[in-house]
Amino acid sequence: MKNSIITLLTDFGTKDHYVASMKGVILNINARCDLIDITHEVTPHDVQEGAFVLANAFSFFPKATIHMAVVDPEVGGPRKSILLKTKNYIFLGPDNGLFTLVAKQEKVQKVIHLTNPKYFLPNITPTFHGRDIFAPIAAHLSLGVNPKAFGEELDHWQKLEIRKPEVKGQKLLGEIIFIDRFGNLISNIDGETFFRFIQENAFTLRIKRATLHGLKKGYWEGKRDEVIGLIGSGGFLEISINKGNAQKVLRVKKGDKIEIRKERS
Amino acid sequence: MKNSIITLLTDFGTKDHYVASMKGVILNINARCDLIDITHEVTPHDVQEGAFVLANAFSFFPKATIHMAVVDPEVGGPRKSILLKTKNYIFLGPDNGLFTLVAKQEKVQKVIHLTNPKYFLPNITPTFHGRDIFAPIAAHLSLGVNPKAFGEELDHWQKLEIRKPEVKGQKLLGEIIFIDRFGNLISNIDGETFFRFIQENAFTLRIKRATLHGLKKGYWEGKRDEVIGLIGSGGFLEISINKGNAQKVLRVKKGDKIEIRKERS
Amino acid sequence: MKNSIITLLTDFGTKDHYVASMKGVILNINARCDLIDITHEVTPHDVQEGAFVLANAFSFFPKATIHMAVVDPEVGGPRKSILLKTKNYIFLGPDNGLFTLVAKQEKVQKVIHLTNPKYFLPNITPTFHGRDIFAPIAAHLSLGVNPKAFGEELDHWQKLEIRKPEVKGQKLLGEIIFIDRFGNLISNIDGETFFRFIQENAFTLRIKRATLHGLKKGYWEGKRDEVIGLIGSGGFLEISINKGNAQKVLRVKKGDKIEIRKERS
Repeated sequence: MKNSIITLLTDFGTKDHYVASMKGVILNINARCDLIDITHEVTPHDVQEGAFVLANAFSFFPKATIHMAVVDPEVGGPRKSILLKTKNYIFLGPDNGLFTLVAKQEKVQKVIHLTNPKYFLPNITPTFHGRDIFAPIAAHLSLGVNPKAFGEELDHWQKLEIRKPEVKGQKLLGEIIFIDRFGNLISNIDGETFFRFIQENAFTLRIKRATLHGLKKGYWEGKRDEVIGLIGSGGFLEISINKGNAQKVLRVKKGDKIEIRKERS
Repeated sequence: MKNSIITLLTDFGTKDHYVASMKGVILNINARCDLIDITHEVTPHDVQEGAFVLANAFSFFPKATIHMAVVDPEVGGPRKSILLKTKNYIFLGPDNGLFTLVAKQEKVQKVIHLTNPKYFLPNITPTFHGRDIFAPIAAHLSLGVNPKAFGEELDHWQKLEIRKPEVKGQKLLGEIIFIDRFGNLISNIDGETFFRFIQENAFTLRIKRATLHGLKKGYWEGKRDEVIGLIGSGGFLEISINKGNAQKVLRVKKGDKIEIRKERS
Repeated sequence: MKNSIITLLTDFGTKDHYVASMKGVILNINARCDLIDITHEVTPHDVQEGAFVLANAFSFFPKATIHMAVVDPEVGGPRKSILLKTKNYIFLGPDNGLFTLVAKQEKVQKVIHLTNPKYFLPNITPTFHGRDIFAPIAAHLSLGVNPKAFGEELDHWQKLEIRKPEVKGQKLLGEIIFIDRFGNLISNIDGETFFRFIQENAFTLRIKRATLHGLKKGYWEGKRDEVIGLIGSGGFLEISINKGNAQKVLRVKKGDKIEIRKERS
């Protein structure tokens, strides 16, 4: 049997034993898995941030990759553990909205409630389902176990309410939903929405104390210290400073507003 | 020959070339190893912290996994380089106590003093035995070399003095031995010791300015900002705040005391 | 076909989706690659730091390893994308000097300008060539595609200007070029240059407010809080404090000067 790929995304950090414990559990069931970290540095308990990073990474992996995502502030409580099957991938994690943005890219074909203890570790702690439930199920999946073996099908699963950009008169209003290591400010305004709104008009973009009047193609076009806008590698409107850090300069945090106003031409 | 798993635990961090150099050395000898990071973010020189993380992760890996652990403040000095063989695993690292907690879980069957330069890199620097000694030996082990080939057997190896919880009259006294990324405070009081002490009695738990009167099952049972106690995923009494950070709120550091007092019922 | 090793070095950090996206792209083309992180924590946009870490790690990997390095502040601009073939390895990355120090260790046999879109992702964003150009080319290389297929040969490629240590009269002058996680200060003075200058003489080494009169073999020889000098594991003169942090104690940053004065014997 060929190697399977299992990716891991968590908010566990990498200083503790948590991530390694999960990898040990998986390899102990299927030593031929390839384990790829998406990230373990999601802000603790920030399900929306986890959903964003997952949605930007999952589709680059080979078909049939198993994506295990554990940002799980309600672990041990009444929230369900689920498996989502889409056209190309399988996702495992808590039913708390972590897969909301995935489902905007790939139709969800089936959702399974993970309840069959046969595929769990023998002792389930109420604080670490990543190790005790999701890791062994990921490993069994990679060995070819049918998702139906893990539990009943669900009709309903949790979605986050994601704020979309809004058009109000001459304005398109959005917000910053992700800030990367370079301080690039990624908004919820996708390129298509932006260009449909603007069409052939001039525009003014405002974020905090910065005002822009056009987009650049890439970071390198920005002059020293210039705040620029561009369509980033994920397809969303992004505010940046070439070789600088827009987050620090503009003191932006997630949720801050961005406003585009169409100018009369 | 099937793939072998080698895990790595160090205090080297991941920003420098050190970890990658070790992985290169291993793969250059045996390109078919699976290399799994336990962590590289042990606090620099903190052997006890390294021992804790290793002890919480190693046993989840498949039998015959080679665990290489290098938290090595005395590198190049008189401390020995050793191999420990337990029932299920092989451990490699400096003889400074790093394997103390492993040995509480698995009987050590054999200890080898790593002295045979045939299995070292040609040039041994006095500052980087991880790359020059432990990595090549891990790789040769994974190829099936017998541990005896690396050196003589030792009768004695170093153990850390680990403070155990103490019963003093109506009190059980422990301390915080590990703090995870979420700010969860993990004590040296294991669940068995705790319940044997408490039995059917009511109790008061004190840590810094916080006082508790019962345990929760999981984080999710804690109310907003409530300091709670529970038995964590490693089996030890743990102080937490649901979706919060107990370390920051209580300003706890490793070594801080925790006190459980039995109340007359 | 046997597994190929591809290493990755970037300044992307590991909290975002960028590194995972590149790994997904590679595995989607060749699922049998072994992906090894050198580091992703190069200081953002610091090409020289990336060059240093790469130069200290690459040569430990098996021959034919593909080293992909993306510290790329000019991404999307006029800078070229290149492949360097040396005797033992292949390097991929932006043509901005990142391979300067590699070329001091291994003769560059061939440089290819990566221009053939057949081996790129279908859509090239101007902000993420790591994912859209370098990752797919690395994967195709690992499948055996000949470097010539990716573009024309180049006669010239970019090198950083690396300051070398200078002898001025009785003084050898160098500077700190890298600071590791432990706060060890690594200079640009290699051991050979140092010993050729000093010969049998006594010497005084000055860095910031510290003055030394000899070298140690390893960290462990340093007394508590003593600032020491030694030849580090990469072969360069290094300033350290045993179990301490020389960077913090001496408040040194990259570029700070180090001076060795020969004393009359």
